[in-house]
Amino acid sequence: MSPPRHILKLSLEEQRQFIDSFDLVISDCDGVVWLLVGWIPNTGAAVNALKAAGKQIKFVSNNSFRSEEDYMEKFRHIGAKNVQEDDIVHPVKTIVRYLKKHKPGERVYSLMSLEANETLRKHNIEFESLQVKEHLTAASLVDHLAIEKPVGAVLFDIHLDLSYVELAKAIRHLQENDDCQLIAGGSDVIMPLAENLNVAGFFDFLEHVKRYTQREATFLGKPSPILGEMFGEMFEIRDCKRCIFIGDTLVQDVQFGKACGFQSLLVLSGCLTKEDMLNAPVEAQPDYYADSLADFTQLLENIQK
Amino acid sequence: MSPPRHILKLSLEEQRQFIDSFDLVISDCDGVVWLLVGWIPNTGAAVNALKAAGKQIKFVSNNSFRSEEDYMEKFRHIGAKNVQEDDIVHPVKTIVRYLKKHKPGERVYSLMSLEANETLRKHNIEFESLQVKEHLTAASLVDHLAIEKPVGAVLFDIHLDLSYVELAKAIRHLQENDDCQLIAGGSDVIMPLAENLNVAGFFDFLEHVKRYTQREATFLGKPSPILGEMFGEMFEIRDCKRCIFIGDTLVQDVQFGKACGFQSLLVLSGCLTKEDMLNAPVEAQPDYYADSLADFTQLLENIQK
Repeated sequence: MSPPRHILKLSLEEQRQFIDSFDLVISDCDGVVWLLVGWIPNTGAAVNALKAAGKQIKFVSNNSFRSEEDYMEKFRHIGAKNVQEDDIVHPVKTIVRYLKKHKPGERVYSLMSLEANETLRKHNIEFESLQVKEHLTAASLVDHLAIEKPVGAVLFDIHLDLSYVELAKAIRHLQENDDCQLIAGGSDVIMPLAENLNVAGFFDFLEHVKRYTQREATFLGKPSPILGEMFGEMFEIRDCKRCIFIGDTLVQDVQFGKACGFQSLLVLSGCLTKEDMLNAPVEAQPDYYADSLADFTQLLENIQK
Repeated sequence: MSPPRHILKLSLEEQRQFIDSFDLVISDCDGVVWLLVGWIPNTGAAVNALKAAGKQIKFVSNNSFRSEEDYMEKFRHIGAKNVQEDDIVHPVKTIVRYLKKHKPGERVYSLMSLEANETLRKHNIEFESLQVKEHLTAASLVDHLAIEKPVGAVLFDIHLDLSYVELAKAIRHLQENDDCQLIAGGSDVIMPLAENLNVAGFFDFLEHVKRYTQREATFLGKPSPILGEMFGEMFEIRDCKRCIFIGDTLVQDVQFGKACGFQSLLVLSGCLTKEDMLNAPVEAQPDYYADSLADFTQLLENIQK
């Protein structure tokens, strides 16, 4: 394998061949199109330029703690045109899809964000969630942990309001019902929240639930292969090689894209530097890299000259 | 080493020798004197009988999420006479003692319960804690994680209201200040909350903080040897062998008591059965066992006949 090449350092002919090599772009959002809190310059123009060049572009994120409206607002803010809700995939959407297929009509317990719960509601999925505002004592904790109705699944995802009692209730549901499935969306180890501010992701909390229930999780976020299969259906992908996956992390994006059989491109606008990329094992490195998604605007200009 | 003996199955002469072998009883609370939620019959009478037989009795717990008033109310409820606040030791008290000695006048960040924070306040320890009631977004999370003033220590303890943002702020404090010490009280793996209801303890959350800060914790709850040293000072113990430690768990109680050089007694009124005790490695088994603290009433009657 040859080391990853910067897309703007390809020869003009190679740049042309590169652009001609894919029809579908699947791009991560946070760290690529924008930051979790903040912006990356000129990414909207790059999205528009790719579309103008005849490319389909879809977005995938492990972030379901942003509402559909917030997603659309962010795309409007960067000036990306004609992005539809269905162009955006994030865990609660894949979870809904999975539940409709594998647990139709079943009640679930949600350890997900209010925004993700709102999506469950829109899809008429009956769910229980705990939002405890009062100060807990041992006695009131016992009350909150009483199971009124069993659930068919516990849904785990990034949930900034997460509290101990919600985790304890999830554990109870899983302990009390052997048929209760643990389904997980985002459980990253690190969340790049803003420039120079990485915070802990939700990985440890999922491990906590698994440890106390001896249960494995069915993952539906990146880098789950189930998500890869869903892409195939959702985007009607016929030839994986003609799809390029763009992301800012090695495991969640590059490795995931490669496992799906897609071409892979790492952008350095998120949490990794060029050195991080080159220090990774060769098989974990992307096919291509760029400073930013915005480099596509330059590349498309180059080849149209 | 001989296997543990039930105190009521000792010969009458052995029962007399046993009672004469100690002056000070240090007893765990939850699972021994009462349950976390619920009661154990006749334990108050046993406390009174031990006192009437000339024994000093002190109480130690890893539970600081109960106020001093709640502790006193529980002792009143079981009919234990003349128990004073100073007879009860739990993590926030040892933490206050430790801070006064090692971090005098320093501001701290508390991941402890409201009840424990109230104790900090009583002792004029300046502390910061996060109680976020509103729904968090990525942007408001960033605001909450801003460090206004550095702290000299992060205090970790059982905290039923614990939430993600509080943990994230603790991690920030530790990351931002190399001199910030991580001090931990209760971090048990399992909490026996009520009959047939064990819930997850706070061990995983402390591990979470340690993992993201590469920091070790200074433990001040059971079974920390620092707590053992504090007992020596607080209770003016001259001869450890004339002290007996009573508890309902092997690691937090029996092992701790043994490490302190005390005699050890396991009661089966908490989270362990006789089989659990006998299945443990011999060196982890107690010197004595009893069904309940209440067995002392019977034993003292036996030897007074």
